Amino acid sequence: MSVVLAVDVGGTGLKGAVVDVHGRTLARRDRPTALDGRGPAENLLALLADLSALAGPQAPVAVGVGTPGIVEEATGTVVYASNLGWRDFGLRALLEDSTGLPVGVGHDARAAGRAEQLASGTHGSFVFVPIGTGIAAALVVEGTAVSGVSGAAGEFGHVVVHPGGELCPCGQRGCVEAYAAGGAVLRRYRARGGEAASTAEVVGLVGADPRADEVWADAVRALALGLQGLTMLLDPAEIVIGGGVSGAGAVLLDPLEAELRALLAWRSPPPLRTARWGSEAGRIGAALLGFERVGTTPEFLL
Amino acid sequence: MSVVLAVDVGGTGLKGAVVDVHGRTLARRDRPTALDGRGPAENLLALLADLSALAGPQAPVAVGVGTPGIVEEATGTVVYASNLGWRDFGLRALLEDSTGLPVGVGHDARAAGRAEQLASGTHGSFVFVPIGTGIAAALVVEGTAVSGVSGAAGEFGHVVVHPGGELCPCGQRGCVEAYAAGGAVLRRYRARGGEAASTAEVVGLVGADPRADEVWADAVRALALGLQGLTMLLDPAEIVIGGGVSGAGAVLLDPLEAELRALLAWRSPPPLRTARWGSEAGRIGAALLGFERVGTTPEFLL
Repeated sequence: MSVVLAVDVGGTGLKGAVVDVHGRTLARRDRPTALDGRGPAENLLALLADLSALAGPQAPVAVGVGTPGIVEEATGTVVYASNLGWRDFGLRALLEDSTGLPVGVGHDARAAGRAEQLASGTHGSFVFVPIGTGIAAALVVEGTAVSGVSGAAGEFGHVVVHPGGELCPCGQRGCVEAYAAGGAVLRRYRARGGEAASTAEVVGLVGADPRADEVWADAVRALALGLQGLTMLLDPAEIVIGGGVSGAGAVLLDPLEAELRALLAWRSPPPLRTARWGSEAGRIGAALLGFERVGTTPEFLL
Repeated sequence: MSVVLAVDVGGTGLKGAVVDVHGRTLARRDRPTALDGRGPAENLLALLADLSALAGPQAPVAVGVGTPGIVEEATGTVVYASNLGWRDFGLRALLEDSTGLPVGVGHDARAAGRAEQLASGTHGSFVFVPIGTGIAAALVVEGTAVSGVSGAAGEFGHVVVHPGGELCPCGQRGCVEAYAAGGAVLRRYRARGGEAASTAEVVGLVGADPRADEVWADAVRALALGLQGLTMLLDPAEIVIGGGVSGAGAVLLDPLEAELRALLAWRSPPPLRTARWGSEAGRIGAALLGFERVGTTPEFLL
């Protein structure tokens, strides 16, 4: 049974796993993106060493890494990733040199989206929006994953929905991400004097704390506005919300569906659901990149 | 030399032509969409009779019709077209019965976009935004024309860019089209006390009449906001602006490029240009639909 070492790189944490060709996670190990003064690349290498040890006698056939930002999949170069401080960074070359294994590097959301679609077995047009520290999207249009002319497609989080609005970490104003990302929800709740250790805690206060209600309503509104434009442009068969924030479940989906419906005067919203792989979609997407690097199509169908 | 009868159906006018397989327009005839109390379908049939007479001895091999709205190309059904009052309308069946010719019916902007792309010979990702009475878009993503799961993709004009803003004829508020369509520019200029007979006249007053400056700045702003989202999602190789309003040339493109650049903090705007076929792209797109209906790939390459 061939296995790969898979890492989903996020702005806050690195999520690692040893994954087999059926999409089963045999071992799991996380690590902060920044730790002991070391940057994301150093921590990524350390995590891969840990994962290799966890794989034990099952020698991994490849490494798969999903990262946010603008990624050139053919060369494994991260052109730009604002949350990681990477620019024109030859990640694949570095990891292949260090590990001695074939390494597939791809866009985290696109890979996770393809994994979601492989798992559900659907075809055609499909949108996967993972909401974690940041927000991206994987767009599958008429059966093809969209990467764009410079690998920068799917930046749903940086669609401007409130012109001149809140400053986004990316430097633009009024992005979806500036209101609806997990980090934004927590930051905006704290800015209103709320005390919470995590985004999940803020979500848990919705309905009980007016400050939580306010920032959550803003998050839902920003998402609905972004999805309105996406629906107009692409008319997708399904929109799947993933990432940590999708754990909010109906607290997210119900008002989001209602807001999107209210913005649309002459068509229904596309079906909305939370991700089947939940917050594990990133790890599975990274594993898919590893298998694809060595020409293997994994059997993820549930 | 085979020819087709081509009609580009718009909210204001029907633009007809007899077009040969090299994309040459042999004859041209227009007709208002509503005339003498007759609706768009009746006027379309009358225009086709005129075009048939104009074709003379060159018996047309097919008819091609491009319409706005939601179009199911496989059956030639117009699912919904707000400017025409059509809903679940079997346009192809009606026209084939009436003319005795094979009829191809498709989305005006998608067909015009494919004609633009055939003419320029480019491949890959491509966005064509025709601005006339309304605004649509033809999206070609990774080489495939995007029609969406229900044929409703490309509704760029109805992306909401000013939540709660001006009422759009479609019933939504704050759509791109409510500010930037030719009709909107003229209506909004008149609402400010300006007198003009056409959108082109308003454009001609930019720089000379503060009311024209104001509505034009709003139009450019709405377009830029819509294109910001489109750029984030699709990362296209090129954005081509067509339709009557593209006749504004640099008066449109220069401020649009500047606004779009100002909205983008970490990437450049995609290259922007006005349509190569100009306001004729709709007729040529309709002709393409006719040729395709009989299995002919026209030689449009310039």
